[in-house]
Amino acid sequence: MGELGSVAVVGVGRMGANIARRLRDVGYRVTAAFDSRRAVAESLAEELGASSPGRLAEVTAAADTILTVVSDDAAMHAVFAESGDSLLEGSRGKLFVNCATISPRVHVEVERLAESRGASSLEACMASSIPQAREGTLYLMAGGRREAFDRARPMLERMSSAVRYIGPAGTAAQVKALVNMVMNSNTAALAEGLGLGAALGLDLTTLREIFAQTGANSRVLETDGADMQAREHEVYFSAAHATKDSGIALELANEQRLDVPVAAAAKAQYDRMVALGLGELDKSGVAELTFPGRQGAR
Amino acid sequence: MGELGSVAVVGVGRMGANIARRLRDVGYRVTAAFDSRRAVAESLAEELGASSPGRLAEVTAAADTILTVVSDDAAMHAVFAESGDSLLEGSRGKLFVNCATISPRVHVEVERLAESRGASSLEACMASSIPQAREGTLYLMAGGRREAFDRARPMLERMSSAVRYIGPAGTAAQVKALVNMVMNSNTAALAEGLGLGAALGLDLTTLREIFAQTGANSRVLETDGADMQAREHEVYFSAAHATKDSGIALELANEQRLDVPVAAAAKAQYDRMVALGLGELDKSGVAELTFPGRQGAR
Repeated sequence: MGELGSVAVVGVGRMGANIARRLRDVGYRVTAAFDSRRAVAESLAEELGASSPGRLAEVTAAADTILTVVSDDAAMHAVFAESGDSLLEGSRGKLFVNCATISPRVHVEVERLAESRGASSLEACMASSIPQAREGTLYLMAGGRREAFDRARPMLERMSSAVRYIGPAGTAAQVKALVNMVMNSNTAALAEGLGLGAALGLDLTTLREIFAQTGANSRVLETDGADMQAREHEVYFSAAHATKDSGIALELANEQRLDVPVAAAAKAQYDRMVALGLGELDKSGVAELTFPGRQGAR
Repeated sequence: MGELGSVAVVGVGRMGANIARRLRDVGYRVTAAFDSRRAVAESLAEELGASSPGRLAEVTAAADTILTVVSDDAAMHAVFAESGDSLLEGSRGKLFVNCATISPRVHVEVERLAESRGASSLEACMASSIPQAREGTLYLMAGGRREAFDRARPMLERMSSAVRYIGPAGTAAQVKALVNMVMNSNTAALAEGLGLGAALGLDLTTLREIFAQTGANSRVLETDGADMQAREHEVYFSAAHATKDSGIALELANEQRLDVPVAAAAKAQYDRMVALGLGELDKSGVAELTFPGRQGAR
């Protein structure tokens, strides 16, 4: 074990922890785990026989590759701080692989900062969820320099069932934002179709079958349709994440001065879920807003 | 030829004409064609060796089964008028098969009117488009009495690759409205994703491939994605129809006091296409509103 090299993980949510477990399973040495919630990092570190340093600089020192899976732009800026404790400290020769879903421009900034210290940086955006992280079957989209991609590739391939190099820093994050924007719109649209079907007293299993055989078919019908009907909203991809990701896409649209009213309407639904305290439900929980008698219906 | 019985067609749009051609091909006698645009009816009648009566009552007299494929609720009310010239005149024992996409309640009214004259009525809602009508591979959803369905079934099976009995009058039209509502939302959402991708300078063929492999996948990605990229908006299902069908669904939602904001945003896009004079483009033409530099972009 461990012959493939050493990895540190920064950001120990469900995704980060599962990626770390997967990399351990396939032969990487996971040497350090870091999270702003110290206890979470310690727990994973104990599980994997890693350290849980108190300082980011120690995380960088502990591994060849530092994988970041933080929650948002602010967290990304915090771990790559230009002064004070930072992953950038002593990072010459290190490779940062950044898996968080954040704004494309932050990936560009991080690449610039890393390179200014003699380190490499690659964005590896994930278009899949928690079980895929554990099983090493993520769909990964990489953005950054070719050399950084080639260096990270052996690890990315062990994390995923498909790796796709998109282009320079920021482009993979753009594609990821667009994937999630369309996915979130389709999910909210499906919840409306099934919710209205329920209101009309139609048989929803039949309705889903018909959707699947017609122009209403979609990937989210397969993944979320039955869950909407059954009110099973165990989280794979939370409504809070949906709001964040659609927000990134809407900001891109705004920068491009492009109207995307359907995506905006879908984001407003996820915002409403968060406002109602439903943000930690799976994105399929948007059906709580569109099925008569459910908690967010109106 | 003709041993299967006689059929008259009311409403000679592309769908009605193609259904009539298909039924002629498989052995029905098409005896009459009617349209408010007289020349269109005469042209199809000539092609199929049918008559083109000036009065609706003559249409009913000409066939055992009268297939209606009219454009909207008002046209449906007009051909099933309670007084004056009407398909209802002399309709005892006849079977009406109503294929138009109209409001569910109008199907219920037509069934009541037909039965009051001793005729039968069935709604046969189509979830497919012009080529499928010609080839007899429609996806059909039937609503009405079981006896009417059993009587119409041999003909419906020759028009379609799948026939599904949904329930009493109005229910098939409800399902159809929901299918199209979700389809229209997904289409408008896809146009936003691809349009924003274009604005960002991403390779759209790659983007479509990634959509297809992720949670952004949908039937409309398969049918409309390449057309949006290539600006090929030859009509299969027009934006004007999309607006009408989404309008029927939104009215159902309104009656049920259910919010469907994503569907409403999608309908507003199709309304805008119509307002811009783009209503006769295919629904994929909604990309004209979301790709930078195209005619409806803003």
